[in-house]
Amino acid sequence: MINITFPDGNVRQYPSGTTAMEIAKSISEGLAQKVLSAKINGEVWDATRPIAADATLQLLTWDDRDGKATFWHSSAHLMAEALEALFPGIKFGAGPAIESGFYYDVDPGGQTISLDDLPRIEEKMLELARQKNAYVRQPISRQDALAFFQKKGDEYKLELIEKRGGDEEITLYQQGNFVDLCRGPHVPDTGYIKAIKLTNVAGAYWQGDETRQQLTRIYGVSFPKQKDLQEYLTMLEEAKRRDHRKLGTELELFMFSERVGPGLPIWLPKGNALRDRLMNFLRVEQEKRGYKLVTTPHIGRKELYITSGHYAKYGKDSFQPIHTPKDGEEFLLKPMNCPHHCEIYAHRPHSYRDLPLRIAEFGTVYRYEQSGELHGLSRVRGFTLVDAHIVCTPEQVKGEFLNVLDLTRTVLWKMGFKEFTAQISLRDPNNPEKYIGSDANWAVSEAAIIEAAAEAGLKTVTALGEAAFYGPKLDFMVRDAIGRSWQLGTIQVDYNLPERFELEYIGADNKTHRPVMIHRAPFGSMERFISILIENTAGKFPLWLMPEQVAVLTISDRFAGYAEKVLQELSAFDIRGYSDDRSETIGRKIRETELKHVPFMLIIGEQEEKEGKVAVRRQGKGDQGTMTVAAFAAFFQKQLEAEEAAE
Amino acid sequence: MINITFPDGNVRQYPSGTTAMEIAKSISEGLAQKVLSAKINGEVWDATRPIAADATLQLLTWDDRDGKATFWHSSAHLMAEALEALFPGIKFGAGPAIESGFYYDVDPGGQTISLDDLPRIEEKMLELARQKNAYVRQPISRQDALAFFQKKGDEYKLELIEKRGGDEEITLYQQGNFVDLCRGPHVPDTGYIKAIKLTNVAGAYWQGDETRQQLTRIYGVSFPKQKDLQEYLTMLEEAKRRDHRKLGTELELFMFSERVGPGLPIWLPKGNALRDRLMNFLRVEQEKRGYKLVTTPHIGRKELYITSGHYAKYGKDSFQPIHTPKDGEEFLLKPMNCPHHCEIYAHRPHSYRDLPLRIAEFGTVYRYEQSGELHGLSRVRGFTLVDAHIVCTPEQVKGEFLNVLDLTRTVLWKMGFKEFTAQISLRDPNNPEKYIGSDANWAVSEAAIIEAAAEAGLKTVTALGEAAFYGPKLDFMVRDAIGRSWQLGTIQVDYNLPERFELEYIGADNKTHRPVMIHRAPFGSMERFISILIENTAGKFPLWLMPEQVAVLTISDRFAGYAEKVLQELSAFDIRGYSDDRSETIGRKIRETELKHVPFMLIIGEQEEKEGKVAVRRQGKGDQGTMTVAAFAAFFQKQLEAEEAAE
Repeated sequence: MINITFPDGNVRQYPSGTTAMEIAKSISEGLAQKVLSAKINGEVWDATRPIAADATLQLLTWDDRDGKATFWHSSAHLMAEALEALFPGIKFGAGPAIESGFYYDVDPGGQTISLDDLPRIEEKMLELARQKNAYVRQPISRQDALAFFQKKGDEYKLELIEKRGGDEEITLYQQGNFVDLCRGPHVPDTGYIKAIKLTNVAGAYWQGDETRQQLTRIYGVSFPKQKDLQEYLTMLEEAKRRDHRKLGTELELFMFSERVGPGLPIWLPKGNALRDRLMNFLRVEQEKRGYKLVTTPHIGRKELYITSGHYAKYGKDSFQPIHTPKDGEEFLLKPMNCPHHCEIYAHRPHSYRDLPLRIAEFGTVYRYEQSGELHGLSRVRGFTLVDAHIVCTPEQVKGEFLNVLDLTRTVLWKMGFKEFTAQISLRDPNNPEKYIGSDANWAVSEAAIIEAAAEAGLKTVTALGEAAFYGPKLDFMVRDAIGRSWQLGTIQVDYNLPERFELEYIGADNKTHRPVMIHRAPFGSMERFISILIENTAGKFPLWLMPEQVAVLTISDRFAGYAEKVLQELSAFDIRGYSDDRSETIGRKIRETELKHVPFMLIIGEQEEKEGKVAVRRQGKGDQGTMTVAAFAAFFQKQLEAEEAAE
Repeated sequence: MINITFPDGNVRQYPSGTTAMEIAKSISEGLAQKVLSAKINGEVWDATRPIAADATLQLLTWDDRDGKATFWHSSAHLMAEALEALFPGIKFGAGPAIESGFYYDVDPGGQTISLDDLPRIEEKMLELARQKNAYVRQPISRQDALAFFQKKGDEYKLELIEKRGGDEEITLYQQGNFVDLCRGPHVPDTGYIKAIKLTNVAGAYWQGDETRQQLTRIYGVSFPKQKDLQEYLTMLEEAKRRDHRKLGTELELFMFSERVGPGLPIWLPKGNALRDRLMNFLRVEQEKRGYKLVTTPHIGRKELYITSGHYAKYGKDSFQPIHTPKDGEEFLLKPMNCPHHCEIYAHRPHSYRDLPLRIAEFGTVYRYEQSGELHGLSRVRGFTLVDAHIVCTPEQVKGEFLNVLDLTRTVLWKMGFKEFTAQISLRDPNNPEKYIGSDANWAVSEAAIIEAAAEAGLKTVTALGEAAFYGPKLDFMVRDAIGRSWQLGTIQVDYNLPERFELEYIGADNKTHRPVMIHRAPFGSMERFISILIENTAGKFPLWLMPEQVAVLTISDRFAGYAEKVLQELSAFDIRGYSDDRSETIGRKIRETELKHVPFMLIIGEQEEKEGKVAVRRQGKGDQGTMTVAAFAAFFQKQLEAEEAAE
């Protein structure tokens, strides 16, 4: 008998050689039907692979990231089987699961595979799936594996085998007539795959090396239910409609310029107004919680980053040092704000009475990303972190986490994100030597994070061994209006920088102590945060954030003067707007303004000017009646409050 | 007879060989007594030098920069004469006038000159001054000059002569027994110099070359009246007290860090709050005047600056290009915001209806300055320009200048600067080929600037030939509370960048036109602007700008809770403050708070807590009575309004 330890700590005994699937069945048939693979001692295995000794076990389903990865990897093999049937002589490179779906890089020889071929490949895959062929794991000797692929004539697989370490176990996986070199794991059989969509065909160099053979990369995604695929396709359409790059251009929020450089966003007036308003809101919420805002330069001497350790870490993959006319003088574009904040802390002595000291900055940093990885505002080379560094005593860590969690909840709710979760990353308890800082401090701060998250009612998952070498951390994820999850920012305990910068405070005992530093950027960067906001709202921002809350539309350009007067009155009520006094029909103006998501239209003509009123129209909701500007201001205020209450 | 043209355009005839001093006497004896030198055809001459042909003439007095320079240069010669008398065998390097005063670099041979020697040198100078020895100009051949200094044994002067161009006229100047190699000009005689203060002794390398002889540099300043010296010394004392570097540290407004780098200011919480508030005020005032705020990156591709021409201009004396892992890719730290703003304008087509387009940014730029030239916040390597670029038609230039002048007046008055003037720099009408842009455009924009300044009632001086090659400009100067003048920012017309970036708009005629660009930064940088504000107010900022408006002082630490409550109430009235609940005596707390210039102290003890009141004290004015927080808020508001009205 072997002991199987479940995630909740329970231990049950099973005969040696039992599989995860059998264990699942021993619990419930319903559960077993959902199992795709299992984590055995932290490693993902086939659910059908016998377990020979004591082990920890976690069953993986479609709801687990690793479960999905198993499913998509098996789908890649299924696609390969279909391709071999349709394109005889085809050779295979690598075929992994990715973030959403899978791909396989193939060499079709003299044949070509195009978008037009995808439907028949899908059809063949579904046909093979219906055969419910088992994915069979076959350990094999290196020699036999080489012989097999030599015979098959697949030089790519041969190269992969040759690259493997000498004593690494080699396995093949077979389903139906298709055999692949593969570490696994896989779902039990092809019947699990019920819905398939092949999405794209692209070129990709073998091993990512542009001097080598160009292969054909076929992308796809698959699901255990037809309904999931439908939802996925709807979500894709919706995501396309909400793409912040598209909306950013349409709403004139930001731009990029080839001459300024890729990945360097330029905030246009409307986007800048939105960003400013958001920053001001964040500033006030931070000040309420005792943060002190500072502004530091965008560069620092190389020595600063040698002290912080960033210079050694970034190196050749980064923006390179900036030389000056003075020999040996070098500056770096700052990749992080922490070294600057350490210098602020260090510039004068501190007592325990000064702590916690919360140094905050909207700090713009620059990090080099490959141009291929840049994506709108979400992956850029220059971005403004909503950053802070809290210097505190080890005992204050929990209170500070509670303070940050309160800030995060307040801000995310006000922005319309009601669902967010976090991952708590702790150290590997079996390898304490991999981390700096005393065991006592780790124990205190790990407990502090776990307790603070629990007290704040935050939904969390815990990952052992995922802490940084310098301290444990907590990462936030938010769910948007169409169900996508976005990684936001992080709270990170750090025992390292206080050492490197020799930060100190005088304790109540009149002795010198080393403080803890907490890096805190729960919202990540303004750029990424706004990109998520745009996609979440599809550009219909909360009224208080709208760059333009009101458009004054004239029925004829004769009323331009009155429009100007209305705008001035509005501005006295702190309502932002613009006027459209072009000589276009009012119908066209209304249509165009609706598309721009301007929340209110104030239409003015002869009657309105005579009576000193405006005809009010709500975007998407039509006519709201004619009233004075003061009455509209009151109406507007009510809308603001209603929105607030709805949050 | 020759024709002499005066600055007002009047022409009068004089015999050939008449001197400027004689001309001055012909106008009024009082005027003549003030004349120190004269500008003849744009070149500064001795007032006693005969004028042989038709010329333009401007008499220079103590009120003119060039007049002062003449006076101080003559004082340097006077000091040399005294030194030669006191330190026989002394040799002379260079002895120019500087911003405030003069210096002479001397080689005292085996002797040393220290601070202790300055009084007797001053005394000797005054003795020689009382002799009223004339400064006599003596043209001399190169050969004779060489022979003279060879005989005197002054190798420095010999080197200076040898460096002169072959056909350049060489002149000596003599007063009393002292003869110097000198281009002049000088005041008529030593008797003009009535008051002298030698201020410092320092080392200086000959020709600024550290491989050569180290000379002794003696600094001094001199005046035509004893009273001027007294005022100057008082001003120096006062300036020392107001030094923004000293106050910036004392008030914890900003800091510098050796590791971050010299010349890179770090704004501490209080300074940052002040800067933020000021930026917000500037933002609102700009938005009122139709500016659109943007945010652009702090770097740009080298190609951007090649297009703009900045790359060719900055080059080796600047921060060097930033390389990246990608071959041939180079970025530059931005020295200016205009190229970025050009890209914003160019990113979509424009019609004449869009103009003027006013693109504004609090744009942080980086420019390399030699470390010896850095000075607090006023000369730095990284600074945030209150910048804007206005794209308009040539006809709109005047209106835009009026708009900027209105903004400038509003802002400077609100900041407490009531006296400001400007220099208008026009092109040299005799050398139109040195400038780009059509004659018609230059005529329009020069007239526009002159008219706008006149309409705005701005006190200006006009400088012909001082325009940039790409357009005319206007520079602002403000006078501070102790009479010093500070150069602020500039408004600059530019025909060049629109060409280089091929900026266009579609006119009412449906044809493509090239717009004009106006660079506009009348307040210069936030850093310099705030340094001037600190020195002008000596740290007692206007109430609305004060980082901390109120300090709540507890009589004993038992009242810390009530202090917190008072602060919260204050914050509801938008009044900023902090509490001091240390266990110090109230007397000490009041003294310390007075020194920090916190405008209001609210003192609380048993009685106040019981009655729910605060005892109010105004900085520098003492007790104001006991009242509720609401009553104090009303009192505070009245103070704000009184300050506003006083402006």
